[in-house]
Amino acid sequence: MSIFQVPAVPATADAELAARLQQRIDRKTKPLGALGRIESLALQLGLVQRTEAPVLQQPQMLVFAGDHGLARRGVSAYPQDVTWQMVENMLAGGAAVNVFSRLAGLGVTVVDAGVAHDLAPRPGLLLRKVAPGTADASEGPAMSAAQCAQALAAGAEVLRGLPGNAVLLGEMGIGNTSSAALLLARLAGVPIEAAVGRGTGLDDDGLARKRALLAQVLARHADAQQPLDALAALGGFEIAMLAGAMLQAAHERRLIVVDGFICAAAALVACRLQPAVRDYCVFAHLGGEAGHAALLQALGVQPLLQLDMRLGEGSAAALAWPLLQAAVAMLREMASFESAGVSDSGG
Amino acid sequence: MSIFQVPAVPATADAELAARLQQRIDRKTKPLGALGRIESLALQLGLVQRTEAPVLQQPQMLVFAGDHGLARRGVSAYPQDVTWQMVENMLAGGAAVNVFSRLAGLGVTVVDAGVAHDLAPRPGLLLRKVAPGTADASEGPAMSAAQCAQALAAGAEVLRGLPGNAVLLGEMGIGNTSSAALLLARLAGVPIEAAVGRGTGLDDDGLARKRALLAQVLARHADAQQPLDALAALGGFEIAMLAGAMLQAAHERRLIVVDGFICAAAALVACRLQPAVRDYCVFAHLGGEAGHAALLQALGVQPLLQLDMRLGEGSAAALAWPLLQAAVAMLREMASFESAGVSDSGG
Repeated sequence: MSIFQVPAVPATADAELAARLQQRIDRKTKPLGALGRIESLALQLGLVQRTEAPVLQQPQMLVFAGDHGLARRGVSAYPQDVTWQMVENMLAGGAAVNVFSRLAGLGVTVVDAGVAHDLAPRPGLLLRKVAPGTADASEGPAMSAAQCAQALAAGAEVLRGLPGNAVLLGEMGIGNTSSAALLLARLAGVPIEAAVGRGTGLDDDGLARKRALLAQVLARHADAQQPLDALAALGGFEIAMLAGAMLQAAHERRLIVVDGFICAAAALVACRLQPAVRDYCVFAHLGGEAGHAALLQALGVQPLLQLDMRLGEGSAAALAWPLLQAAVAMLREMASFESAGVSDSGG
Repeated sequence: MSIFQVPAVPATADAELAARLQQRIDRKTKPLGALGRIESLALQLGLVQRTEAPVLQQPQMLVFAGDHGLARRGVSAYPQDVTWQMVENMLAGGAAVNVFSRLAGLGVTVVDAGVAHDLAPRPGLLLRKVAPGTADASEGPAMSAAQCAQALAAGAEVLRGLPGNAVLLGEMGIGNTSSAALLLARLAGVPIEAAVGRGTGLDDDGLARKRALLAQVLARHADAQQPLDALAALGGFEIAMLAGAMLQAAHERRLIVVDGFICAAAALVACRLQPAVRDYCVFAHLGGEAGHAALLQALGVQPLLQLDMRLGEGSAAALAWPLLQAAVAMLREMASFESAGVSDSGG
């Protein structure tokens, strides 16, 4: 049986460095605080990298894909085959995550975490399939404890093999808003009705059925209260690999850009195992999925973008990337009042 | 006396093209509407450029700088000299707008619209000074009708000389949140108390003084109700040039990226003269300045970013630029359900 050892995650808190970073930010030629979230990002990046002059090196977009037994219960507007079809689309460079990653200069790697289809090996695809889709969580646990550990370990292993000091994380999996909503309800105590949304586009009837089904699933797994138990019971493989990758990234002090609702649910799992993971995460986007705001609130974080998107894949993470570059460039390139000979307020 | 002829602005509305663009967007490999604001941007860009495949060519960042007679009344946390000092900083490449524009691949041109300082000619600086700062609007009109026309015409002329099909507009001017707030109050009927904010960082006493002063200024110019009369009475030169540049850009069907509060006030002036200007504008950011939300509401527009910034300069416009690139790339590069062999919902 696979074992997953939750890695240690160093704290980023460093009052002395934080003060130096804040001083550096405050001496830039702008009113105090006038760059808002760019300033708080810069502070976070400096603390993650333990320097006043952080730098982003070889950022990697990783998309974890997996199928869900629950998809057979009609929780999605799309058929399950769309998971592997979209993986093929990503490998051909035609998905939104490819288009936006190209613009941002990010390479894309897709990981088969558990797609219910045989994907031919090729560059840009890592085959780490635990099984061809999770089991139906309405009938039993989505995965065994061993499968869950295997998925977490695979996510960590994939992360270890990446170059660079920053990773952007996305996902693909028809039905995976269900797993994310279930994890949100279980691990953050959000009522299941508030956690469940339309996913890729359920109509009112579909949403009502999804809510009723997920309430049953949650009740069936009432014993699965601990993070790893909940993850195994509720799925999915891609979420488990994401959580493993996040834990490993934080262990290595890499910056983590968290895409949308599903990835944030994986972050919730990772943070329940190691709360310090949160300080390595930048949350790219708050979208329209019903539970998304509650999920970010449970994590105690603010999103960078609010563009009314609900696609996942890593699309929002790629769109947020230039803001991280801006935060770094602000710290490294922007003039100070002193260097530019600009009068400070009251001067 | 200079005369400014308000240019004609063609409507972008085209139901047949809009339907084709929407169809093209809807066939991309994503759930309907799942790219949110990126989709509405793509639609707008297509309508502005009258094509299903818009392209962004040689985008130009233009920063208009001017001083304000009102600044002598203590409406800013910074001394008036900061205007020219920041222009020097921009010409040296050290301001936030430079740093963010470099990242986005945008050239920066600064226009002296009316800085109260002799700026030496050099590349990247256009000398179009109407006067060394506006007059004190608490004592009389900020500018004469002739100066106002001259500034509008200069803005249009600067725009005509630019290459490319998209312009990003920013500003610099100590005291110019006062002019913007006054224009918002006068042209949109927003109560002056709601329109006035802290600008670059007034404290509570400073804010109270600014509110009282601006209420007096507004009352003194009670007759200046028409857009051009209000603009002349309330200032400033950089706002007038921005409005002229916007009108000319829309006349030429160029895309306009509007930075923050001050630029949006200039857009309000331009839209009161030619309502169709709005359809060429993308509003980059909603920030923390008090009247900003009311201003965007008066214009009937949604911002792209909300990053709690209040710097101006064009900094938010530069940060928003990658989202416009993403909208174009989505239309041009993203696969369709048909081309990628992905099943559509219900398929």
